[in-house]
Amino acid sequence: MEIEAGELLRKINTPADLKRLGQADLVKLCGELRQYIIDTVSVHGGHFAASLGVVELTVALHYVLNTPYDQLVWDVGHQAYGHKILTGRRHVFHTNRVLGGISGFPKRGESEYDSFGVGHSSTSISAALGMAVASHYKGETDRQHVAVIGDGAMTAGMAFEALNHAGIEKSNLLVILNDNCMSIDPNVGALKEYLTSITTSKSWNRFRDDIAYVLTKLSEIGPDALGVAKKIEKSIKGTLLKNSNLFESLNFRYFGPVDGHDVKRLVHILDDLRDIPGPKLLHCITVKGKGYALAEKDQTTWHAPGLFDKITGEIKKSKADKPVAPKYQDVFGHTLVELAEVNDKIMGITPAMPSGSSMNIMMKAMPNRAFDVGIAEQHAVTFSAGLATQGMIPFCNIYSSFMQRAYDQVIHDVAIQNLHVVFCLDRAGIAGADGPTHHGAYDLAYMRCIPNLVVAAPMNEEELRNLMYTAQQDGIGPFAIRYPRGQGVMPDWRRPLKAIDVGKGRKLCDGEDVALLSIGHIGNEATKACITLNEEGIFPAHYDLRFVKPLDEALLHEVFGQFKKVVTIEDGCIQGGMGSAVLEFMADHGYQASVVRLGIPDEVVEHGEQQELWRLCGYDSESIVQTVRKIAVSRKTDSLAG
Amino acid sequence: MEIEAGELLRKINTPADLKRLGQADLVKLCGELRQYIIDTVSVHGGHFAASLGVVELTVALHYVLNTPYDQLVWDVGHQAYGHKILTGRRHVFHTNRVLGGISGFPKRGESEYDSFGVGHSSTSISAALGMAVASHYKGETDRQHVAVIGDGAMTAGMAFEALNHAGIEKSNLLVILNDNCMSIDPNVGALKEYLTSITTSKSWNRFRDDIAYVLTKLSEIGPDALGVAKKIEKSIKGTLLKNSNLFESLNFRYFGPVDGHDVKRLVHILDDLRDIPGPKLLHCITVKGKGYALAEKDQTTWHAPGLFDKITGEIKKSKADKPVAPKYQDVFGHTLVELAEVNDKIMGITPAMPSGSSMNIMMKAMPNRAFDVGIAEQHAVTFSAGLATQGMIPFCNIYSSFMQRAYDQVIHDVAIQNLHVVFCLDRAGIAGADGPTHHGAYDLAYMRCIPNLVVAAPMNEEELRNLMYTAQQDGIGPFAIRYPRGQGVMPDWRRPLKAIDVGKGRKLCDGEDVALLSIGHIGNEATKACITLNEEGIFPAHYDLRFVKPLDEALLHEVFGQFKKVVTIEDGCIQGGMGSAVLEFMADHGYQASVVRLGIPDEVVEHGEQQELWRLCGYDSESIVQTVRKIAVSRKTDSLAG
Repeated sequence: MEIEAGELLRKINTPADLKRLGQADLVKLCGELRQYIIDTVSVHGGHFAASLGVVELTVALHYVLNTPYDQLVWDVGHQAYGHKILTGRRHVFHTNRVLGGISGFPKRGESEYDSFGVGHSSTSISAALGMAVASHYKGETDRQHVAVIGDGAMTAGMAFEALNHAGIEKSNLLVILNDNCMSIDPNVGALKEYLTSITTSKSWNRFRDDIAYVLTKLSEIGPDALGVAKKIEKSIKGTLLKNSNLFESLNFRYFGPVDGHDVKRLVHILDDLRDIPGPKLLHCITVKGKGYALAEKDQTTWHAPGLFDKITGEIKKSKADKPVAPKYQDVFGHTLVELAEVNDKIMGITPAMPSGSSMNIMMKAMPNRAFDVGIAEQHAVTFSAGLATQGMIPFCNIYSSFMQRAYDQVIHDVAIQNLHVVFCLDRAGIAGADGPTHHGAYDLAYMRCIPNLVVAAPMNEEELRNLMYTAQQDGIGPFAIRYPRGQGVMPDWRRPLKAIDVGKGRKLCDGEDVALLSIGHIGNEATKACITLNEEGIFPAHYDLRFVKPLDEALLHEVFGQFKKVVTIEDGCIQGGMGSAVLEFMADHGYQASVVRLGIPDEVVEHGEQQELWRLCGYDSESIVQTVRKIAVSRKTDSLAG
Repeated sequence: MEIEAGELLRKINTPADLKRLGQADLVKLCGELRQYIIDTVSVHGGHFAASLGVVELTVALHYVLNTPYDQLVWDVGHQAYGHKILTGRRHVFHTNRVLGGISGFPKRGESEYDSFGVGHSSTSISAALGMAVASHYKGETDRQHVAVIGDGAMTAGMAFEALNHAGIEKSNLLVILNDNCMSIDPNVGALKEYLTSITTSKSWNRFRDDIAYVLTKLSEIGPDALGVAKKIEKSIKGTLLKNSNLFESLNFRYFGPVDGHDVKRLVHILDDLRDIPGPKLLHCITVKGKGYALAEKDQTTWHAPGLFDKITGEIKKSKADKPVAPKYQDVFGHTLVELAEVNDKIMGITPAMPSGSSMNIMMKAMPNRAFDVGIAEQHAVTFSAGLATQGMIPFCNIYSSFMQRAYDQVIHDVAIQNLHVVFCLDRAGIAGADGPTHHGAYDLAYMRCIPNLVVAAPMNEEELRNLMYTAQQDGIGPFAIRYPRGQGVMPDWRRPLKAIDVGKGRKLCDGEDVALLSIGHIGNEATKACITLNEEGIFPAHYDLRFVKPLDEALLHEVFGQFKKVVTIEDGCIQGGMGSAVLEFMADHGYQASVVRLGIPDEVVEHGEQQELWRLCGYDSESIVQTVRKIAVSRKTDSLAG
């Protein structure tokens, strides 16, 4: 359902319409845009607080820049709702994050105003620099290239790599540091403290003014003082001004800090900056959730609150008739504390996802043993490796798709050294509404080729708990556990912990003719499929492989000794995934059987609800039923025929 | 052959022996250690200039620290030869990098003094911080944790991520910045310029001294000046001192710059720093290659020169009776320029490997179109993606094992957006003497699961050229070409360029009974094997698959239509690699055949010569012969039997 826009906003379909407004109207327009976001997200869901925080910046940028010729790259993209609404997508904005609707992130295929697709953090400076260097090469000297990046995203290494390179290029690049002291959770680290210090104590500009004032005063005092003044001036010009600021150390011209909610001043500054060549950084101070009081107060909850009553601020919970199964992430969070209470070697590490991973439970319970290291997956893994060399047992929790950022560290620092680090990969498999950048599609394939690494996936909450228990035992090496976004299947999940033999799968039901081999939570879809099939007189066996590495060879010998038709089911890419591991086993042991592999196909899977996408990818329960029907012999049909 | 050590050095088997020396002897010892490295490397090979540059630092560290209780992490590890010699490995140092000998890098399994295994750059601060945090947790307040990192390695993002975290931990961490202005090639980027500016213009310490002097002077002038002095002091203390330096911005206490070749002063400083708690950075200025004049003069050549005459400095070339085939990297470098001369959209990108990848050929020929972006694989890939959005065709050359650092960027920024970036992965497969950290073992497995990405490997120089030609054609998307370290097989490699159909393999020879399916350069071993086998009356067919993605389905239909015995051969991990892709094809098309997969086994493969390791892994020509012999029917045997 499209939301009604205010009187100014409703006339704006492209930035050209925006430019027709007088500067006096911009404040009013910002109010309308903010209200439009509140009205839409409250009934349609999505990310919230980040976009509210950049309303003025968004309006000012499109007012001043000549987009899409001028290129604007939003880092991460959580904050780009205002941008989408102003660039031709107001009428479809209510389809945000819905299957077939617009993406929750900027996306090149969706609009020419989306210069670079995003989702993961800290890519914007690299991408914008690439654009700027290309423009420079082509002689497009008038073209502007702007990256808008948060102070949280600035802590990731690749942002620093990009600054280091950009500082020696002469290209036309403006980095806007959107400093709101937040990632999804409060931002952490030395950089954040630094930004706070230059913002709150005294601005550099003011410091420079002071120095100028003092030098003038000194020269008035007399010849002695004049000599001293000159000496100070020389010292300061030679060293201080050149290196006075972290960004200036890297050859960026630094401007700010400025109030990111003063749209008129932003327009003025951005207009001025257009004429200044080379790498520039504008430091904007904004408030995440600006204009919605509850969001300003509790920015983590309001990062993506789900549906809510915009008047009362009440966040709507989904109604449940039956007791609700917990989220996997919460099972992880509570179980970690339970284990750490007994095993004092356990530590917890999250790269900026305390609430998303539920590591915040341990951070609250054991603040000296749980670390949020910032948006820094690479460091998180190698820091964990360092801990492990000292006999600690780090549980390093990283979303599956974000673990792609630390792939080398998993191999180089953990696996090759055979260190006892436990990786917990949340959001594995289809992630849902966040779409292709966030699907944890590749982890089984990219992890199972790594020597020394155990790779497991729990089918339910109890299995997750037991795998975690298993992983923290002495003598275990590198160990990865991947589980999906969202709820499990066990309302009564707090069961006693017990160890699982590493590499040991389990048979869930006997059967005939066809065997289903699943791994992880998606096995529950296979279980559902079996119930349906049984009613039709088809009785597949069902095995939960649990480990993609090491494989349960005894179990697989049983399967291939008994069945000539096998269906593998995984919530992961079928190229190189679990099914592929099973084919390798068959080849190595000379088994011949017909194997159908179900999993994420070799294409970019778009956004939508998990269940919808499982269906589209062909491995929800109904798809499994159809697959098995095609290949199985039905006993009912048999008896009818007989 | 063990080299004879000088009179002091020969008495030092552990750091305890070193500590018995008086400080007056340290200069002499440094001379002997430097000579020992020169003597050994000149006849046994290995990395050279980096270790010469840290002789004094190495001696001072082991003299002051209580290693191995105090923990010393060498970044990258090229520079750790002196460390190895002083920590019990002098007698085996001549086995450096040889199969069965000691590793060219620090390695935990080799010595308790090697606190963390390295090889890839920029992991040391993360690892040392993990150790420091563990010590802090255990209450080991006296324990020291030192990371020695080069200014080149400091440009990689993960080093910055670690600084950002370390700055808010209270642990006992000392980062020694070994500033020699070099990676393997001269270091680049804004950070390098910054370090140069604080080193050459005026030290911070001197600046501070000046300020103190000036303030004193001012206060002597009179009451007016005193007021001014106080104002300045307040300004400076409030802002300047806190943030005066990039590292201090990140909460590190900064010391330096100091002369890294003054061993006595280093001992003094390191001794002082032991008592200062929290994160500290010591900025040491060193000269890569120090003490060997030619190496100081041409540091890139002398990074790892191979064998040389230590007196004349003549680097020994391997003698060749027949015309020598070029290195793949040089074929890449020259062909790139050849292509770029015709196609003005082509650009070249290397993360700090101009000479290692031969990108320096394009950097010299077309300086405005080829970029060294520093040790920054992540940025290199996303920068390339940014260029590609503007219609450029970036050739981004990254060693296979280093590409692990940019895995997320390949997926998130290039493949999902289907951008036309050409990745050239040098050092794919077994890398040789650099060992497990550098083997490009996993790339076929971790790349073939990525949608939209073409993955190819040339069997020889002509194929590499033609794949590069193919990859730069209009309408091609993301394209990866992987090739090994070292020489190809074609002295006459400069052949006319022609396009290859994407996903099209080729039949090299017809045969009977068994088909060999190879990909890449290792196919030449299969060719050799065929010659041997033919003499025995065994005639395998041989196909070069060329592309692991997309697969040549027509070719595979031909193979499996005709053969029931197939051997796949790849210089890459067998878990999830090319052989696995072939098994997937078979399963999807209902073929049944006996498939033997040869490739890197699921274990950490140590260092040695490529050919030796191919043998150990079971896929050199002799191993292929043995494998085929076991499964093939020999026509000779047949006729004898018949």
